[in-house]
Amino acid sequence: MKIKTVSSLGEFGLIGLIKKAFTSTIKDKNIIVDIGDDCFCFKSGQNYIYITKDMLIEDVHFKANWISPYELGQKAIEVNISDLAAMGNVSPKYVFIGLGIPSCTSENFIKNLIKGIKKTCNKYEILLSGGDTVKANKIIISVTAIGIGKDIPVKRTGAKIGDLIGVTNTFGDSGAGLYLLYKYGISHNYSKTELALINAHNKPTAKLNEANKIHKYLTSLTDASDGLFISLDLITKNCFKSANINIEKIPMSKNLKTVFNNEKQLIDFVLFGAEDYQLVFTVPKSKSKIVKNLVPNITYIGKITSGTRLKYFYNGKEQKIKYCGYKHF
Amino acid sequence: MKIKTVSSLGEFGLIGLIKKAFTSTIKDKNIIVDIGDDCFCFKSGQNYIYITKDMLIEDVHFKANWISPYELGQKAIEVNISDLAAMGNVSPKYVFIGLGIPSCTSENFIKNLIKGIKKTCNKYEILLSGGDTVKANKIIISVTAIGIGKDIPVKRTGAKIGDLIGVTNTFGDSGAGLYLLYKYGISHNYSKTELALINAHNKPTAKLNEANKIHKYLTSLTDASDGLFISLDLITKNCFKSANINIEKIPMSKNLKTVFNNEKQLIDFVLFGAEDYQLVFTVPKSKSKIVKNLVPNITYIGKITSGTRLKYFYNGKEQKIKYCGYKHF
Repeated sequence: MKIKTVSSLGEFGLIGLIKKAFTSTIKDKNIIVDIGDDCFCFKSGQNYIYITKDMLIEDVHFKANWISPYELGQKAIEVNISDLAAMGNVSPKYVFIGLGIPSCTSENFIKNLIKGIKKTCNKYEILLSGGDTVKANKIIISVTAIGIGKDIPVKRTGAKIGDLIGVTNTFGDSGAGLYLLYKYGISHNYSKTELALINAHNKPTAKLNEANKIHKYLTSLTDASDGLFISLDLITKNCFKSANINIEKIPMSKNLKTVFNNEKQLIDFVLFGAEDYQLVFTVPKSKSKIVKNLVPNITYIGKITSGTRLKYFYNGKEQKIKYCGYKHF
Repeated sequence: MKIKTVSSLGEFGLIGLIKKAFTSTIKDKNIIVDIGDDCFCFKSGQNYIYITKDMLIEDVHFKANWISPYELGQKAIEVNISDLAAMGNVSPKYVFIGLGIPSCTSENFIKNLIKGIKKTCNKYEILLSGGDTVKANKIIISVTAIGIGKDIPVKRTGAKIGDLIGVTNTFGDSGAGLYLLYKYGISHNYSKTELALINAHNKPTAKLNEANKIHKYLTSLTDASDGLFISLDLITKNCFKSANINIEKIPMSKNLKTVFNNEKQLIDFVLFGAEDYQLVFTVPKSKSKIVKNLVPNITYIGKITSGTRLKYFYNGKEQKIKYCGYKHF
């Protein structure tokens, strides 16, 4: 008999297994956002308390020589703040860090990692509030971030038919940067433009200000950590609706178009390249101009429809798009 | 030049490095217990909100064939509840699980791991509220637990001279169980008594009820996750005092004394064997009887003194005791 492994289940099979097992009978009137969104949220007094948890593992999420420890520390915090931003109006408050560290790791590495963590905590006025350090055979950075907000959260579930789908800035740079690192390694003689793409991968920033500015107009919101394609899938599936997406409207950076000119490859980076950490949201058409005025970088790339499947168009012509991004297992 | 590694720093050197880097200038009047206790605690409305985070790594904290996945799931939750219990009057509410899983892990393993997690969550009426799954080359279980309480927390810092030092039950079983597993492996023909010791290691329970019953009488409190010796060290160092400990008073189980009869080895298990998850606390002498009546298993093993170093006595004679427990790095 062949033993069924996690590899054959895949990430979403695995999450399905966990979700199913945990469908709970516990009734707690303080829970505002349950498992399955960017953050969990419960109410305490007048406060909405948000919790998110992310784990970065060496050789799975990063290679230790492709990113400096300082950048790695910054990124570990930014990606969690991005999850808080994806709930709308949240102030990040406390982070907890679990560090798994091989015994042979240099003190210098740890010092610079901590410097990076500290830099980003200070930027957002977050307090490092606890955590633990354990021996491991790969570097593991497990971050739990807590945020507090006064307004009701914007979930992934609220999109209405006719709502516009907006994004905060360009897509594809981070995925392209990672592609370059895989292809040429770290000691290649990169051009300035190529280095900008690698930086986009190594030094993301959470769109917290943007979320705080526009949250009250939005019907749904998430951050594109696993790529735009997956974010669009989540937003439409969670509201049991669909969408038409205009691929040619998805913003790309000049850097990306300078380094790559193959149309197919560009679309792959834009849709499947992960870790751009842009906000992906829906907004009623009547509010779309206000939102664009508040954050001028915003672009509307499509519209929520009553259809049964997400449709991608390129200059009006429907395209067959299949997921070809990173498989976690 | 020799590069300084984490191994040469040691766990406490590493924690010192992190603590130093994060001594914060952020003033937040809602923070009740800062980094360096069993949990972090902040106030929101009338609630004290507690957060703790622990990471279990295969081949560091457990060997996958020494503990069943079901027991492992239970243990991962219990050890975090133990940290919540160590703050006094806390109701565990929400847990977040980060799972690192090798691709070759069997579906059966995951299913049983989840069953164990679920069993213990149900026992405490905790909701599994989020988390993530990532590929890893070893099994990693990173748990964040959130508890809520109405009373001020009992920190590690409040012991006063003359306070009695109490513990909730016996010490040494868990460490002895682990010793047996290291010595004979899993397929050895163990006696019932030996299996009871192995079970003590694999199936710990948090002393939550005990903490809830006695918290209001205590001056300091922690749980003995790293062993009694370290707990006593923490409680005395944190109040800048010392203590006299009567080793012969530290409770041991019949099982432990049946399997091992070497006095020196028994003392090593009791002081340095980790993961008994008993509460270790201080209480004013005037309240010690009330506390003992509330939890009859409690034993008083020593007294807080004004001395400069912790003293161990065996039947009245001072003993030289040096730390010989597990070194994390």
